Amino acid sequence: MANELLDCEHNLRVAIKKATESPCPPQLAQALEYAVFPGGARVRPKLCLAVALATGNDEPMLAMSAAVAIEMLHCASLVHDDLPCFDDATQRRGKPSVHASFGERIAVLTGDTLIVSAFEQLARCGFQISDARRLATVTQLVTRGVGAPQGICAGQAWECEPSVDTATYHQCKTGALFVAATCAGAAAAGEDYQQWLPLGSAIGQAYQVADDIQDCVGVSAQMGKPSGRDALLGRPNAVHELGLEGAITLLNNLLNDGIASIPQCAGRDLLVSLVEKQSERFFPSGYKRCAA
Amino acid sequence: MANELLDCEHNLRVAIKKATESPCPPQLAQALEYAVFPGGARVRPKLCLAVALATGNDEPMLAMSAAVAIEMLHCASLVHDDLPCFDDATQRRGKPSVHASFGERIAVLTGDTLIVSAFEQLARCGFQISDARRLATVTQLVTRGVGAPQGICAGQAWECEPSVDTATYHQCKTGALFVAATCAGAAAAGEDYQQWLPLGSAIGQAYQVADDIQDCVGVSAQMGKPSGRDALLGRPNAVHELGLEGAITLLNNLLNDGIASIPQCAGRDLLVSLVEKQSERFFPSGYKRCAA
Repeated sequence: MANELLDCEHNLRVAIKKATESPCPPQLAQALEYAVFPGGARVRPKLCLAVALATGNDEPMLAMSAAVAIEMLHCASLVHDDLPCFDDATQRRGKPSVHASFGERIAVLTGDTLIVSAFEQLARCGFQISDARRLATVTQLVTRGVGAPQGICAGQAWECEPSVDTATYHQCKTGALFVAATCAGAAAAGEDYQQWLPLGSAIGQAYQVADDIQDCVGVSAQMGKPSGRDALLGRPNAVHELGLEGAITLLNNLLNDGIASIPQCAGRDLLVSLVEKQSERFFPSGYKRCAA
Repeated sequence: MANELLDCEHNLRVAIKKATESPCPPQLAQALEYAVFPGGARVRPKLCLAVALATGNDEPMLAMSAAVAIEMLHCASLVHDDLPCFDDATQRRGKPSVHASFGERIAVLTGDTLIVSAFEQLARCGFQISDARRLATVTQLVTRGVGAPQGICAGQAWECEPSVDTATYHQCKTGALFVAATCAGAAAAGEDYQQWLPLGSAIGQAYQVADDIQDCVGVSAQMGKPSGRDALLGRPNAVHELGLEGAITLLNNLLNDGIASIPQCAGRDLLVSLVEKQSERFFPSGYKRCAA
């Protein structure tokens, strides 16, 4: 699977250009650009596009729009998550967070605008594709991953409750958008998305464990954000619960389960190798995945 | 035009119920309900539905979804607008604002969730209607009214700039969603939406002037929010610029222009009477509209 087929940078640029064109207020325009570029690993849109490619990708514009929308929504969640009232994080992706650079007001509006633009990106597919139901399915999968009752907003809101089930919290806050990525990729290609749910769920959980490990053993400069935040903020962390070796075993099992769950499809082998490659960076130095 | 045809309360309830069902975190669920009910005058969704009815309303589900989405987006903008980093308003619609009741974190998430749910509401029409292009047009009109470069987010972001053209600011922050309401109503009925732009624009401007007048002469209890905020926050206000009589003349002219702009259509007379009726509340006591 050629890497450029999984690359949504150009389409992300087009979407941000559309939101920031005249007469957009200058600071909002700068902050929108700043919040999205340069990106992180773009793991969610790559996963979405990889599943679409593996399942035939007969509506490539829809798959690309879903990937771009998912990444914009992810960026929006980071901007709002970093706000003083939440994590009060001053660093993100190796540079000052949006509110640290542009102030809290512009940070709130940057998140809001990214959410609106993400859905505009998806809606625009209606001008090109003939199958309105397919677009509706993809959009609904994306909304499910980010809103309430069980998307990112719900996950974040669990932080405000006096008690929370850790699995539910992570499933909403991290897992839901990975599930949206695999399912929307399959639905964009007209496939039954249900059977792609376990892959998204497993990678989402693995990603959370990898994040927990990085928070404990990571060097801030590599992560692009401060380490040791979970202990500081009293948040659940797999390394605190299982120890480092236990957390790495869990990560390994989740990835193996995810790979095993990939349904038979034309591009299965290529998709497996992509998931393997992407997950290399989930492990701290000195560790790697052991196949089941 | 029977008033119940312009009523979106039931559909708003269904949309909020969907977002707040199990396993939604309890406080987020309460805040979503609190932010939307009881509502204000629901002037934007009424306007959207009235235009759809006047132009034939041959896809009533799409018009209703647009109306519901527009009201949810309006409520989201109020919740974020009231945040401590913006207006720091503790009162809204005669009760404590969302952040005053539920805290700042839940207020940010309530706004975010309402935005996501609004677009889910629209996307779902794709399962019912055959014309994907019409849904795309309506959704794009709604996104234009709320995002950037010239929707509500852009309008709000102008408050963060060192200087701003007052007309541009009001057009984005207030006018854009009224334009979305009239244009989306027409587009939902398959009409050319361009000719409905002047009505939305005129009512949006009139609404802003009415808001300025209320801010100067209003009694807080009637408005449901504190008066005198514009002077306090140094924001432009038509009464400060033109005096009370001048502002009322401007309001009158805007409404007359808006009514004159309504294109010929089957339900024109009923729409005119609706706009007349809705605009009665734009005037302070002792004043009323004089027809051109």
